[in-house]
Amino acid sequence: LEAGDDGAVYALVEPLHPADIADLLEQVEADERSALTRAISDLMGSEVFAELNDHVREALVDELSAEDIAEIAEEMETDDAVALLEDLEPEEQQAVLAEMEPEERAAIESALAYPEETAGRLMSRDFIAVNEQLTVGELIHYLRDNKDLATEFWEVFIVDAHYRPVGTCQLSWILRTDRHIALSDVMKRDQTLIPVTMDQEEVALRFQKYALISAAVVDESGRLVGQITVDDVVHIIQEEASEDILRLSGAGDGDINEPILMTVRTRLSWLVVNLGTAILASSVVSLFQDAIARFALLAVLMPIVSGMGGNAGTQTLAVVVRAIATNQLTSSNTIRMVLRELRIAMANGLSLGLLIGTSTALLFHNPHLGAVIGAAMIINNLVAGLAGILVPITLDRANVDPAVSSAVFVTTATDVMGFFSFLGLAVATGLV
Amino acid sequence: LEAGDDGAVYALVEPLHPADIADLLEQVEADERSALTRAISDLMGSEVFAELNDHVREALVDELSAEDIAEIAEEMETDDAVALLEDLEPEEQQAVLAEMEPEERAAIESALAYPEETAGRLMSRDFIAVNEQLTVGELIHYLRDNKDLATEFWEVFIVDAHYRPVGTCQLSWILRTDRHIALSDVMKRDQTLIPVTMDQEEVALRFQKYALISAAVVDESGRLVGQITVDDVVHIIQEEASEDILRLSGAGDGDINEPILMTVRTRLSWLVVNLGTAILASSVVSLFQDAIARFALLAVLMPIVSGMGGNAGTQTLAVVVRAIATNQLTSSNTIRMVLRELRIAMANGLSLGLLIGTSTALLFHNPHLGAVIGAAMIINNLVAGLAGILVPITLDRANVDPAVSSAVFVTTATDVMGFFSFLGLAVATGLV
Repeated sequence: LEAGDDGAVYALVEPLHPADIADLLEQVEADERSALTRAISDLMGSEVFAELNDHVREALVDELSAEDIAEIAEEMETDDAVALLEDLEPEEQQAVLAEMEPEERAAIESALAYPEETAGRLMSRDFIAVNEQLTVGELIHYLRDNKDLATEFWEVFIVDAHYRPVGTCQLSWILRTDRHIALSDVMKRDQTLIPVTMDQEEVALRFQKYALISAAVVDESGRLVGQITVDDVVHIIQEEASEDILRLSGAGDGDINEPILMTVRTRLSWLVVNLGTAILASSVVSLFQDAIARFALLAVLMPIVSGMGGNAGTQTLAVVVRAIATNQLTSSNTIRMVLRELRIAMANGLSLGLLIGTSTALLFHNPHLGAVIGAAMIINNLVAGLAGILVPITLDRANVDPAVSSAVFVTTATDVMGFFSFLGLAVATGLV
Repeated sequence: LEAGDDGAVYALVEPLHPADIADLLEQVEADERSALTRAISDLMGSEVFAELNDHVREALVDELSAEDIAEIAEEMETDDAVALLEDLEPEEQQAVLAEMEPEERAAIESALAYPEETAGRLMSRDFIAVNEQLTVGELIHYLRDNKDLATEFWEVFIVDAHYRPVGTCQLSWILRTDRHIALSDVMKRDQTLIPVTMDQEEVALRFQKYALISAAVVDESGRLVGQITVDDVVHIIQEEASEDILRLSGAGDGDINEPILMTVRTRLSWLVVNLGTAILASSVVSLFQDAIARFALLAVLMPIVSGMGGNAGTQTLAVVVRAIATNQLTSSNTIRMVLRELRIAMANGLSLGLLIGTSTALLFHNPHLGAVIGAAMIINNLVAGLAGILVPITLDRANVDPAVSSAVFVTTATDVMGFFSFLGLAVATGLV
């Protein structure tokens, strides 16, 4: 297919939705990608670029001139154009902006002035805002007569003389109301306003909680400056939730289109940190070398205690990290959550301790060894539960993303305490 | 606050959004919850119930009569009422349905007839569908004159004589078009139709991919039967993404409002499965008891090899599980992804092997031991990379959710191979 017939490729790709073309470009090998883009260059519109994965888009954009990029950006909505430009090198970004129409350029520059990952970057400047004195009929006339207004909007914002939002009208309400009725009688006064500096994760939580389709963005003085629509938020919800699983495992942003060297660097640095904790844990074992040399069965059984603690700690950690991310864990229920996890850890520890303790005692005809491993299992489950909840809460209070760094601390705790409790109890109780 | 003054509590809660009241009910202790609901019973409308967490809602619903539940369900949109009723015991569900108006009852019963987690359960039956012969003006008249039509809609579906969708009009297009123009000239013919039996996860991916606000749901014969709106999908996206992290760690659905015994049961059963794999791994160690008794340093170092393999395997696993869940890993790029992970594993393995091998050789003045642990580290990283990608892909092909069961297999592989490669190489090369 790829080798030759550009016409046939074009015919195959032509009926696809831009999002599907973007998917296709992400799926093919890097070298086929250039050939493919040449074959379908007519179809490579702004909508395809808007849908592309960051790394793939960057690779394609690298091959384009500043003029071409500017042309694509001009066709995009402000928020997509910002996403395209924010990843460029500063000098290239300037070159592209210089090629753009002054109006679009100003919109993008003002968006780029807001910090990354805030509402200011996400919002679109194309929205409909009218005065509350208008009637439904006047609004419809206004919308019909002004051809350069936004076409993608789901609600009409009602503003006062200072351009501050006072209410909002869903389009369905407007369509279902008689022409002569004033907008102030149709609109809902209660609305969720998004401050322009709000973090995008917080924006996503608001959209979810209040089931919003779009929302007004206001600046520090309360003036309406943009709108955010749910389709942009959906990506964030997805990304933020995925991020936690990937960060917990130290896999960076887990993007399968990322250049392989970047991936290796991210993962390797995490593994080296973990190597440090593994060495720390093994230094605990080294304290007990004599005991192990005398009774090698200890070395056989010790990974069970540390491993099970690690598993239990990871469970608690996953639950707590998600609860923090979704605002379910607040200062008012922290103590209750800690007690809850401790009770779970105690129940799990007792069950597992009894199970492994009895089995060991019977299998090796050594009740003393059984008691030691059973007790160590209970201790390590409690350590796992405590670390699993206290580490992420503490990091979160210290404004560190708990998903990124919790796992190292929790595994260190369960490894060290797993080895120490088991080997230590064995020595202290005179087993060896 | 709770102890006494119901009036004051009511005054505090009264101005809150239903979603905030639901949050409040989730945050308080179970026994305070009953007191709180009594104090604010007037405010406990259907909207609060729609927002509540499943477990909290179940607890509250248990205290209500079938009649009260029916009353709440009747005020809800079909999809929320279905979510409320689907969790009830069969006989209680029947009792509630018997109390409802025939029309709403029929709508809910037909939704309950579709399998759980499909589009049929999610969709609402309140939507606007009109014939394509209508003009914009006629449509607006129709919407104004029929007072019992839906009020929450974001697009108007255009259907043919057999009620099959032929196009769709965003409300903003209608508002911006002259009265005399036919809908067939305004509508977009290309639209994403959702089959009524489609899995909700797939529905969510469609909404994300095509940035949909709402979509038409069609039955097997292609007739329009309902609509799904993005606010219902947002919850699914969030849940599905969270689910993976929680399932990978064996924490069930990780709901902090779940009764504690259920949580213990879920987590414990996962831990017992892991206990099995831990015992399997330790049985590998037991093969080398003599070697360990002679040279206890092996027991000190062996957890490093197995632990690092586990970390590397988890990284790959997290990336692959997310790629599968978001449809990024398809049959066309599987081989490329496997090769990618193998190259990453080789790079990580070589780096870590060199690092730990050299350090061990220098620290213990034992180059042979350094070579053994370095080689074992490389082998176990490759095992981790291979298992991390092949296990979830194989499970996915076999229609098993890779997030649920992959971790056990991957950790077993890295534990067993970690111990075996290190201890085995030590013995085979005559180190002990």
